[in-house]
Amino acid sequence: MKRIVLFGTGNVATHLFEAYKNSNSFKIIQVYNHASESLQAFEDQVAITTNLDEILSADIYILALKDDVLAEIKEHIGKTDTLVLHTSGSVSMDVLKKFKNHGVFYPLQTFSKNKEVDFFNIPICIEAGNKESANILEELASEISEKIFTISSQQRKTLHVAAVFVSNFVNYLYTEGEKICAESQIPFEILHPLILETALKVTKMSPIESQTGPAKRKDQDVINSHLVLLSEDQQKIYSLLTQSIQNLHGKEL
Amino acid sequence: MKRIVLFGTGNVATHLFEAYKNSNSFKIIQVYNHASESLQAFEDQVAITTNLDEILSADIYILALKDDVLAEIKEHIGKTDTLVLHTSGSVSMDVLKKFKNHGVFYPLQTFSKNKEVDFFNIPICIEAGNKESANILEELASEISEKIFTISSQQRKTLHVAAVFVSNFVNYLYTEGEKICAESQIPFEILHPLILETALKVTKMSPIESQTGPAKRKDQDVINSHLVLLSEDQQKIYSLLTQSIQNLHGKEL
Repeated sequence: MKRIVLFGTGNVATHLFEAYKNSNSFKIIQVYNHASESLQAFEDQVAITTNLDEILSADIYILALKDDVLAEIKEHIGKTDTLVLHTSGSVSMDVLKKFKNHGVFYPLQTFSKNKEVDFFNIPICIEAGNKESANILEELASEISEKIFTISSQQRKTLHVAAVFVSNFVNYLYTEGEKICAESQIPFEILHPLILETALKVTKMSPIESQTGPAKRKDQDVINSHLVLLSEDQQKIYSLLTQSIQNLHGKEL
Repeated sequence: MKRIVLFGTGNVATHLFEAYKNSNSFKIIQVYNHASESLQAFEDQVAITTNLDEILSADIYILALKDDVLAEIKEHIGKTDTLVLHTSGSVSMDVLKKFKNHGVFYPLQTFSKNKEVDFFNIPICIEAGNKESANILEELASEISEKIFTISSQQRKTLHVAAVFVSNFVNYLYTEGEKICAESQIPFEILHPLILETALKVTKMSPIESQTGPAKRKDQDVINSHLVLLSEDQQKIYSLLTQSIQNLHGKEL
């Protein structure tokens, strides 16, 4: 049984805590956060602390922290043989090189606190500073997921940018879609099947093949009739993405 | 048994043809297209024609045509009591008002010819010129889907714009994500679970609540480190959407 101290109480930390609850091989023995309010959700389940001098000794420290907080906290952790991991998509493994055993444990998923996720299908991108750390990381990841990828810091950075496009930016377009519907008293639910099918489709075929719509068809009448329905900010997005689609698919003609 | 003539052989027409294949209440008896090559996929299964003077008499004409072709073809259909429908998201029902019985049958989904869809969950937006047409339309739609919505021309136009945001534009962002991965030899498959979860999440909670990522966190270091990895065109999209997310979520602070 390997003991883990979890640093952080954000979306990733909360979901990791849930994921390892039923593990027989790994046990989260303590959760740290600088603010005590954030620890309330954990206090009945595990030891908690707001004091970096009271961190328990353990086999693994998981720093599931915002990038700037990560930089600060790691300075406060003294010399140790414990395997120290961070969970960030955009931070190089090297920020942890002061620790003999270090690595990265990056679950590639979007987490919201009040939405359950099934870790089993979540790709976990791992990277380790030495062979021994790699073995523990692989064991740790395999405990909750069947999709483990060894990804370098440079690749992870690129992957994180791609994830911003296909998740954060996509979610923003959903937000605009909901807003447009609300203005005409149309329930957003009517768009759910379209949203799901659009996502599902690109897991079966390349998105470049599955592009449809007025931009790809170069249907300027429809495009113009859409633009007049939109706010100035929405028009900017509509025009830029329409132009981008036409630039890409124009080459196919 | 009501007889249907289907005008068009594009994505929507192809999927409608498949959907009504096993119906006992509706039968597609003929498919029209101006180009004979496009009819080849149908010729073993149904009567086909490229000649508008040879259209069979039927109970329903479904014009599943591009908007500009629709405007032209309807001029060539003479006076008739047949229920004439179009399938366009962006064209008003009124373009068909020269026909005594007319309406709109708009399946709100993204169709690609070589990707099967399950019509049962596809919302079908209907609008009819009179009560009798409304009844037939409802019967026609209920035959293949359990989600029927009566939507006015004005609402449909708005819905179509929203659909462009949540499907066409979203698919374009998937395309960029794939491109970014390919440049770093990362398999796009690693992003599939994230894509699916991002979509699934907004069917359970509002997208405004499920927004995550560096733009929402106002993590300028990450944003800057992403921008340098992108092409000029990608930077434009990244900057505009990041700014939009910050404008929206900045208000929450």
